[in-house]
Amino acid sequence: MGEVVECVPNFSEGRRKEVVDQIAYSISSVPGIKILDVEMDADHNRSVITFVGDRSSIQEGAFQGAKTASELIDLNTHSGEHPRMGALDVLPFVPIQNITMEECVEIATSVGERIARMLGIPVYLYESAATVPERRRLEQVRRGQFEGLRESIATESDRQPDFGPTKVHPTAGAVAVGARMPLIAFNVNLDSSDLEIAKAIARKIRASGGGLPHLKALGFDLKEKGLVQVSMNLTDYTVTPLSRVFDEVRREAEARGVRVAGSEIIGLIPLDAVCDITARFLKLDGFVSNQVLERRIWC
Amino acid sequence: MGEVVECVPNFSEGRRKEVVDQIAYSISSVPGIKILDVEMDADHNRSVITFVGDRSSIQEGAFQGAKTASELIDLNTHSGEHPRMGALDVLPFVPIQNITMEECVEIATSVGERIARMLGIPVYLYESAATVPERRRLEQVRRGQFEGLRESIATESDRQPDFGPTKVHPTAGAVAVGARMPLIAFNVNLDSSDLEIAKAIARKIRASGGGLPHLKALGFDLKEKGLVQVSMNLTDYTVTPLSRVFDEVRREAEARGVRVAGSEIIGLIPLDAVCDITARFLKLDGFVSNQVLERRIWC
Repeated sequence: MGEVVECVPNFSEGRRKEVVDQIAYSISSVPGIKILDVEMDADHNRSVITFVGDRSSIQEGAFQGAKTASELIDLNTHSGEHPRMGALDVLPFVPIQNITMEECVEIATSVGERIARMLGIPVYLYESAATVPERRRLEQVRRGQFEGLRESIATESDRQPDFGPTKVHPTAGAVAVGARMPLIAFNVNLDSSDLEIAKAIARKIRASGGGLPHLKALGFDLKEKGLVQVSMNLTDYTVTPLSRVFDEVRREAEARGVRVAGSEIIGLIPLDAVCDITARFLKLDGFVSNQVLERRIWC
Repeated sequence: MGEVVECVPNFSEGRRKEVVDQIAYSISSVPGIKILDVEMDADHNRSVITFVGDRSSIQEGAFQGAKTASELIDLNTHSGEHPRMGALDVLPFVPIQNITMEECVEIATSVGERIARMLGIPVYLYESAATVPERRRLEQVRRGQFEGLRESIATESDRQPDFGPTKVHPTAGAVAVGARMPLIAFNVNLDSSDLEIAKAIARKIRASGGGLPHLKALGFDLKEKGLVQVSMNLTDYTVTPLSRVFDEVRREAEARGVRVAGSEIIGLIPLDAVCDITARFLKLDGFVSNQVLERRIWC
């Protein structure tokens, strides 16, 4: 069973399909790379390309994506709802199989250095690859966005990049390169039209409110369904099991007299997380994902 | 994503490792075959080889296994606890991916015909491949075992094989060839030392007692653990979800004042079954196994 690193770059282009196609093509042209998913969002004017490879091919694929984006995207003419500071805006590496987080930090550091040196783009290391605690959180790294960073990078000492010039690239901006655990996007819909209930539950259960570690949560109104939603990102399911997240939301909802209407996983979920839920639900002793038939077939 | 058929032959040899190795080698020598598991049981004097392939390689692998077993195993000198009628005793084909049960019935029929014609072994088609309802159940097909069948095959009209001579092979006996769904072996341990409770629950929930469809169940005493166990085989998890099986056992146990101590999956479980449990537990809408990250990587 070989090593598998996942890379999930976010690019500041969600409308011109030919641009996103060209970026994806430059990544997939690297031997050993497999693209799993390409998602474009026109409102956010942003796209996310998910691909996997071993440590060597993933570095080359990530660099080629950064290079193509820097040639085709001009942030001076870019607008969209999502905050951004670069053509390639965020570049996280995720350990999937037979590779550690420490090794993914090394990969991020090495690719970040190369992007800065070869493309002249300032690079900030974030999350597990951060060199100072204040840069762990992406929101912190990206504050001010492209336009604000153009000023602050030269004038504010704490805005010095980890690699590259203290001057944003004229068209490609700056980029955050990091390493993180697989993220699970999980929404629970509540049988209520009271947005305040979803917001109150989100505030109570999220990590920033003293709730569950590694959980981000917001309350939303699903007007067309007549429901409200607790929308979550779980950034480390090995610390906070997804089953625990569900149980907490249900408990908080029931304490407010509200029933869970249903839930959804957005995008992908690691096999280990699915096996963990199965093991907890069935009270399984010693269940491992290697007991999944298809895993034996595929690996 | 290619087609995947699983084949799980049972051979009447569980003590001489060199014989089982030679059978496994003859199967794995067929291009396109991947062996997932080899299990030998000395008490039962029986072994189970699990392998996968596409429809063409699986037929060749199964035939080569049957041929090698017929050359190396002599049922006249075989004894063990498990009922058996052939050197290769049972040969089921299981649809895993991009293949239907009907196609697995065709495979079973074709391999069965070839085993009878080339090796001179009488073949009985069973489960989904059965040609008459009475032959669906393996226990029924195998009644009397090797020794009994030697007499009854020629004298009793309902013992006529589907293919091959009305005379058992002098050393290799006869074989049951069939098609079936993946089987899940699932045990639930109860925090009690009262064997009668486990037996009563088993009788109530199993299909033969009017309980859950496609469920077989027995009660066992786990003396060294001080627990009793409901030991089950679920032969079609798409009809009876595994989560339902667990819920029923727990409910029946609690009705008798007994707590579930834990449970275990023996051997392999299909990814779809694990995803089904996850979806039911989290009340997920529209969750599919294609959302499992590793499935995207491997397929």
